[in-house]
Amino acid sequence: MCRWAAWSGAPKYLEELICDPQHSLIEQSRHALSCKTSVNADGFGAAWYGERLTPCVYKDVRPAWSDPNLLQLAHHVKASVFLAHVRASTGTATVRDNCHPFTVGRWSFMHNGQIGGYDHFRRRIDNLIPDALYAHRTGATDSEALFLIACGYGLSEEPVPAMARAVRELEDMARTQGGAPFMRFASCWSDGETLYAARYASDHLAPTLYYRCYGDGISIVSEPLDEAPGEWLEVESGSFIAVRNGTVSVGRFFPDKVASSKGNTPKGCFDVGRGFVESGTG
Amino acid sequence: MCRWAAWSGAPKYLEELICDPQHSLIEQSRHALSCKTSVNADGFGAAWYGERLTPCVYKDVRPAWSDPNLLQLAHHVKASVFLAHVRASTGTATVRDNCHPFTVGRWSFMHNGQIGGYDHFRRRIDNLIPDALYAHRTGATDSEALFLIACGYGLSEEPVPAMARAVRELEDMARTQGGAPFMRFASCWSDGETLYAARYASDHLAPTLYYRCYGDGISIVSEPLDEAPGEWLEVESGSFIAVRNGTVSVGRFFPDKVASSKGNTPKGCFDVGRGFVESGTG
Amino acid sequence: MCRWAAWSGAPKYLEELICDPQHSLIEQSRHALSCKTSVNADGFGAAWYGERLTPCVYKDVRPAWSDPNLLQLAHHVKASVFLAHVRASTGTATVRDNCHPFTVGRWSFMHNGQIGGYDHFRRRIDNLIPDALYAHRTGATDSEALFLIACGYGLSEEPVPAMARAVRELEDMARTQGGAPFMRFASCWSDGETLYAARYASDHLAPTLYYRCYGDGISIVSEPLDEAPGEWLEVESGSFIAVRNGTVSVGRFFPDKVASSKGNTPKGCFDVGRGFVESGTG
Amino acid sequence: MCRWAAWSGAPKYLEELICDPQHSLIEQSRHALSCKTSVNADGFGAAWYGERLTPCVYKDVRPAWSDPNLLQLAHHVKASVFLAHVRASTGTATVRDNCHPFTVGRWSFMHNGQIGGYDHFRRRIDNLIPDALYAHRTGATDSEALFLIACGYGLSEEPVPAMARAVRELEDMARTQGGAPFMRFASCWSDGETLYAARYASDHLAPTLYYRCYGDGISIVSEPLDEAPGEWLEVESGSFIAVRNGTVSVGRFFPDKVASSKGNTPKGCFDVGRGFVESGTG
Repeated sequence: MCRWAAWSGAPKYLEELICDPQHSLIEQSRHALSCKTSVNADGFGAAWYGERLTPCVYKDVRPAWSDPNLLQLAHHVKASVFLAHVRASTGTATVRDNCHPFTVGRWSFMHNGQIGGYDHFRRRIDNLIPDALYAHRTGATDSEALFLIACGYGLSEEPVPAMARAVRELEDMARTQGGAPFMRFASCWSDGETLYAARYASDHLAPTLYYRCYGDGISIVSEPLDEAPGEWLEVESGSFIAVRNGTVSVGRFFPDKVASSKGNTPKGCFDVGRGFVESGTG
Repeated sequence: MCRWAAWSGAPKYLEELICDPQHSLIEQSRHALSCKTSVNADGFGAAWYGERLTPCVYKDVRPAWSDPNLLQLAHHVKASVFLAHVRASTGTATVRDNCHPFTVGRWSFMHNGQIGGYDHFRRRIDNLIPDALYAHRTGATDSEALFLIACGYGLSEEPVPAMARAVRELEDMARTQGGAPFMRFASCWSDGETLYAARYASDHLAPTLYYRCYGDGISIVSEPLDEAPGEWLEVESGSFIAVRNGTVSVGRFFPDKVASSKGNTPKGCFDVGRGFVESGTG
Repeated sequence: MCRWAAWSGAPKYLEELICDPQHSLIEQSRHALSCKTSVNADGFGAAWYGERLTPCVYKDVRPAWSDPNLLQLAHHVKASVFLAHVRASTGTATVRDNCHPFTVGRWSFMHNGQIGGYDHFRRRIDNLIPDALYAHRTGATDSEALFLIACGYGLSEEPVPAMARAVRELEDMARTQGGAPFMRFASCWSDGETLYAARYASDHLAPTLYYRCYGDGISIVSEPLDEAPGEWLEVESGSFIAVRNGTVSVGRFFPDKVASSKGNTPKGCFDVGRGFVESGTG
Repeated sequence: MCRWAAWSGAPKYLEELICDPQHSLIEQSRHALSCKTSVNADGFGAAWYGERLTPCVYKDVRPAWSDPNLLQLAHHVKASVFLAHVRASTGTATVRDNCHPFTVGRWSFMHNGQIGGYDHFRRRIDNLIPDALYAHRTGATDSEALFLIACGYGLSEEPVPAMARAVRELEDMARTQGGAPFMRFASCWSDGETLYAARYASDHLAPTLYYRCYGDGISIVSEPLDEAPGEWLEVESGSFIAVRNGTVSVGRFFPDKVASSKGNTPKGCFDVGRGFVESGTG
């Protein structure tokens, strides 16, 4: 299990999420509260979007709190959209290529969760990654594989359905070849314009997912950054949110259904939505 | 504050202290119990004595649990005398040169404690290090300075009085130029033959120090490695122990008195001992 | 291209190959002579055999010359059989899991060479690794894949034919799906008892491979460790050598032929040998 | 000896100096030409000035070419003033705190050179650092000490005379307590507005120093970034340059004279010139 936080809004220093809050990401790397592992010190990473289309990625294997470069960058780098992650390994090595966020072109992705029995069918998961994307398979985590498979399913055209389909595929593999809990998923991904996040689990123990609307933007997190009662809204399991230009859209994230309707899934399903919640920050 | 463990006895794999016990040093690096900082993940180190006179030192900046090289070495390296340490920085950077153990020639040293107000008079502490030893001053910690000053006071001839004198000098500097708590000290040092450890504090909060006699050797630790009631003997504040060839000698470690008598302090005062405790491991 | 050196004989400190010779492995990491890349500073590694059946592996991403831990270990660790490697990346990342030697159980492997167009068919190479060994696929190099595939072909039973078959398979894939040069190979592998090395290329530019018999053992290297004329014997392309108990056996290493006769390849083909050279160190 | 490059002008991506030129800083880290050490792979660093008064510093111990984070940052970070450095250790350890640039408040500093016999009188050099700045003494290099001593001499008020005085002091110490070559110095320092660089040696072997005027700014380097004949102007030994708002001022940097006239040295001698190259402040 890992902890992560993301921002979409007015340009903000990374440290305003990573270092400053009472229960900042760095504080969570030492003492996470709503997490199986209280210490999340097996590497960290951040991706932020600036003038270029692709994000800038900084990640490394040390605990977030002990890396002076991270503290420098967090203090000096400002971005309108960024993702940050602290990792607690569930088995794979603590090497940079296993740290989040992962990126392909404009897209970045970070994950908190697990795929049951992943170690037993990793080869078959790897085999789902298209050749064209296989050069991006540099680590050994389930998270990286999940992201690349979603890219192969057309993440750049259909950000939510493609991710949902990847989740469903891997959940199916876990059911047939792995073990319980088949899929636990609380992830965030972005192209630098829209920030997506989704929460899902095969059982009733989906990893936590929250967001909060500030005056100048929206933060999505795996665990609240402070004790502001009522401010942090929980995303339900089986839902996703999409944040863009100060607007939060909430929709259903049902891996089986979404994926089965692939092909005719309306693009931007989160704009349409039955029962969607929209909340502006304006 | 840091955690450490040392061994003197029959050759033992490092992992038998570092990894295997219920409350091993690696476990303590995540969840120390009798320590102000429960996470001790700002580097680690080990020094062991083999065929050469000098120890082999392996240390690095990552958390002990996440370094695959450490796990390999702990699994494969066997030694009769070794020291191992996990660090929680009290301010100085997490760089290798600030990790314990420190070594000069045959001597190794590791420390848990602090010198009150050290940051304010570090230059003057550095200035107590003799030129001949100054090349060993590669980091910025109080621990390294304390060790080098003790070396300058003749650690190799009088291992306990020299250390006591260094502790007293720095405690005096803390009293006049720093602040409370002036000195807290629970350290271990060795020349590869005898293992020394001492406990002291200016106040009544000396860092913990324990030892335990096994059938084939003696372990000294800052915190017990398991819950074996009655097996772990606490070293009193103001005392030192010296372990050699299966024998534990306990003596007083009064920085002021020992140091003031320097010159006529009987070498090997811990062999003579009024009120000393001796316990063999048979 | 990389540089490596191995030893089989009386217990020797690692530094006697890694640091001390005029053209030691560390010197080669800065100034390799018979190598396309003169700087081999993208990580290093060593594996040595001690009391346990499995080797102890130490590897990391820094240049060999700048790692104080490596210098410490090389100075203190003694072994009868060891392998050491300095890496020059041909494209894959400089992360620990891409550094040599690679190990599975008792077996260790290090490689200098390349597979033409590897990037284009890596997924299919990965897919040749059996599920049972896939947990060992933690990096992204062709070398690691080659080793795991050889393990899958029965390296532990038939150390040379299994390796030859893996080389042939990957050479075939390079011919059909990759590009020239299809296969260049100069590798060393061991189970802690016998040291194997082989040299091969699809063209006439096989990476160099030498060995030398000392009074107390045999060294195999990718490049001579000093200028001792006549002492360093070159292994021909298409040949392997096996070193055990002071005896060097030389045999043919023809990937196509050896592999095609798999099943009835005589085990220990290098003990039989037509035209084999045997030279004892007596 | 080390290699470095700096920029003052229109906002530029770091990679335009670090990665892109024919003989970029990364290329120099492998194959420096006018340098005693052709490989400069013992760490690297960059400091750039953005919205905050203090610079953002990124530095680490790996070779510049092998650090994916550096490549990411160099590709994405743009600045009007930045300094970048690749290190070849002359003895001190390859730890982050020994990498350049060093910073205090707004000021950054990077150095190529040496102080003869530094190891023999380092304690006395350290002792020249004021208590108020001693917390910044985290490494063990002569470069860091030189910078902190210059800060103590009033670098922020008199950037050139303070540096010259520090150089003279340490040269004097080298003459009386160290050995030849007493002082070799080619350094660059900045407060984010003006970029200073100076060249000096006790003998006639001052490390090289060049600058070049582009249409949109000025680059100062220890070695030209490309073979543009006539474009790279050499700074003479015993001179400094100051670059601000597209103007280069050149003046004398005579440690003895400048320092002895401290107090009446015209401040801002580099504020004079209009036009491009101005030389001669004497």
